[in-house]
Amino acid sequence: MDWVDATYRIESDLPVRKVAEIIAMEESTGTWTDVGTTHRDLTDVTAVVGDVDEKAKTAVVRYPIELFEVENVPQILSVIAGNLFGLEQIQKVRLEDVIFPRRIVRAYPGPRYGIPGIRDLIGSEDRPHVGTIVKPKVGLNPAETARVAYEAAMGGIDLIKDDETLTDQDFCRMVDRLPMVMEALDRVFEETGRNVFYAVNVTTGPEEIAERADLATKWGANMIMVDVLTVGYTGLLELRKNSSLPIHVHRAMHGAITRDPTHGISMKVISRLVRMMGGDQFHVGAITGKMDATPDEVLPLDKILTDEWFGLQPTFPVASGGLHPGCVVDEVKHRGTDIIIQAGGGIHGHPDGTRKGAMAMCQAAAAATMGQSLKEFAKGNYPELRTAIDKWGVGKKEDYYG
Amino acid sequence: MDWVDATYRIESDLPVRKVAEIIAMEESTGTWTDVGTTHRDLTDVTAVVGDVDEKAKTAVVRYPIELFEVENVPQILSVIAGNLFGLEQIQKVRLEDVIFPRRIVRAYPGPRYGIPGIRDLIGSEDRPHVGTIVKPKVGLNPAETARVAYEAAMGGIDLIKDDETLTDQDFCRMVDRLPMVMEALDRVFEETGRNVFYAVNVTTGPEEIAERADLATKWGANMIMVDVLTVGYTGLLELRKNSSLPIHVHRAMHGAITRDPTHGISMKVISRLVRMMGGDQFHVGAITGKMDATPDEVLPLDKILTDEWFGLQPTFPVASGGLHPGCVVDEVKHRGTDIIIQAGGGIHGHPDGTRKGAMAMCQAAAAATMGQSLKEFAKGNYPELRTAIDKWGVGKKEDYYG
Repeated sequence: MDWVDATYRIESDLPVRKVAEIIAMEESTGTWTDVGTTHRDLTDVTAVVGDVDEKAKTAVVRYPIELFEVENVPQILSVIAGNLFGLEQIQKVRLEDVIFPRRIVRAYPGPRYGIPGIRDLIGSEDRPHVGTIVKPKVGLNPAETARVAYEAAMGGIDLIKDDETLTDQDFCRMVDRLPMVMEALDRVFEETGRNVFYAVNVTTGPEEIAERADLATKWGANMIMVDVLTVGYTGLLELRKNSSLPIHVHRAMHGAITRDPTHGISMKVISRLVRMMGGDQFHVGAITGKMDATPDEVLPLDKILTDEWFGLQPTFPVASGGLHPGCVVDEVKHRGTDIIIQAGGGIHGHPDGTRKGAMAMCQAAAAATMGQSLKEFAKGNYPELRTAIDKWGVGKKEDYYG
Repeated sequence: MDWVDATYRIESDLPVRKVAEIIAMEESTGTWTDVGTTHRDLTDVTAVVGDVDEKAKTAVVRYPIELFEVENVPQILSVIAGNLFGLEQIQKVRLEDVIFPRRIVRAYPGPRYGIPGIRDLIGSEDRPHVGTIVKPKVGLNPAETARVAYEAAMGGIDLIKDDETLTDQDFCRMVDRLPMVMEALDRVFEETGRNVFYAVNVTTGPEEIAERADLATKWGANMIMVDVLTVGYTGLLELRKNSSLPIHVHRAMHGAITRDPTHGISMKVISRLVRMMGGDQFHVGAITGKMDATPDEVLPLDKILTDEWFGLQPTFPVASGGLHPGCVVDEVKHRGTDIIIQAGGGIHGHPDGTRKGAMAMCQAAAAATMGQSLKEFAKGNYPELRTAIDKWGVGKKEDYYG
């Protein structure tokens, strides 16, 4: 029999094993009192307890696959991440990870492009990609957005994206913004021969999201972006099935669920689902930067996105959040070159403007690819990088909002 | 100008006001370093800080409506409940409540039936509705499910529902289960003249959910059910727009987001969104029972669901989770009669079976409606209620899983 093995970390006055039994009952055939509604054997749909580590406070609950509709992500979540979070016998509980059997993983398409497909479109090999978020997050009009995109692309980056809160508001409608940005990137191609992605944010409800992706294709997009947690996993799946564009996936709202290491749902689970649903690029945090993450948290996510997994394409991990050129070498040293490093303020806030800021980021990425120290590398003919380092330093900047 | 006023509770080493300013910047026009990409005044899309209470650790962040697409719930959430949860300057932050202006609230339909419409269909006036979840949660076949439904309905209840994890698995396909349950309820109508709802769980991704609702209508359903948090708010909205059936809304997974009183998103916010999206009945917890709630937590949710709100129909609050007849008077005493009280094990686990269990629950509801003490009331000719009280007692039962 195939099983879905979910690992929970449990805080309770009861032994971990006992709580795991309660979860197994609550999420399968049990209830809190005996009922006489059937006399058949329900073993084939009854969850059981697997490995328990009382000291680490972790337990595996094994759900038989018959409990699930394999193609119904909401139903799967309602079992492995459902009522258990509210049970009174538990003070805190975190869904740490989940191992799906092949039958479930392969019920989903995975990325259409993945790392190899994205690299083919850009023409890159063994180096990190560099991206930027247009800043300020919102407020620019379409012409200003296109100008920023042009400058950043001329500076050498691979990807420009909308911020996670910019979609189709009146101050910057997609119908105006997207063609103007793509026209700017066409000029960059003519001038430099380089392809640059623009991930336009089509985040909206599932009723309309496929239509927005269609419009994006019609208006010349070469990538779309979605806030997976506010839209829902199945919204991402719908994009994967209905659009042939690569998909850049943002995780806005994740901190509400993932941040407490003793409660909620871990980024591991979210990362698995995003890869299954077909995200080509996914934000999993940065070791340096304004968001809160350590190598221990981030490296396992990179592995989940990129390790061999029943033949699914690997998803390109994205590092972002308060990054600047001084962060790049540290990120690559820990995480390798299969990574997209994004900077917003760390590019546009460069003292000499967006283009020089993009150049500084790309110079830092080159240093990282060659395994050189940033400070040594910057002694070469890289004035843009030196200016960035003078402003932001090397490594983590502590006080982002001054 | 219209504003969306979000109240956050903040834990940080910095003053609450400072953190609120950081949130306002992060979620609107700010970034962590100066950028030179525009020189226009962005006031009309810049969030500002409203009331701050350093002692209570709360602050209001006021978002101008121009920041939003008013009909795009994922986009609204990506602003008011987005990146802020991951900011490094904040140890913990909870979105406590949000006040939407009329322009946003009325962009959504609200419940099609609401409390008055649901009461019309049942023919009830000033009394709590009584419901049951078929138990065990999963594992019964369609014929067993229909038999349980028939027995419960003959016992006098108003509503039968699937459990939140039962949808369309192989062991109990909807195509078989739904018509058999509805045929059983037709017999109940013939024998008693009473209408009884069956909320069939159509939880699935948005691609398919409207189709499942259509099938439910075709196969005779009189109510549908959805797990709103695993499907997404816009999945509920899609059901509201595309089906004319009343919608029963379950909140599986909410504890991952709502349970920590200092982090995440409160049930107030979720309740507002469910009412806007069109949930006719919504689970907001019970004061008694196996889930973790106090009157202070639950009563504000009842108000959010039922108070006058720009003309939206009120949503029927549902109390559930380990309830039994001994809980009913306490729930109604605190919450009034505009409530649906659901019991699963507390009905089917009755020593004399499901029908007597349902009778005991309805007897308890009658006592509550008349404002009588349960123990006094049970001295009348109510052997079913007495048996239930003998088994489970009156008030909260502490050890549900024994």
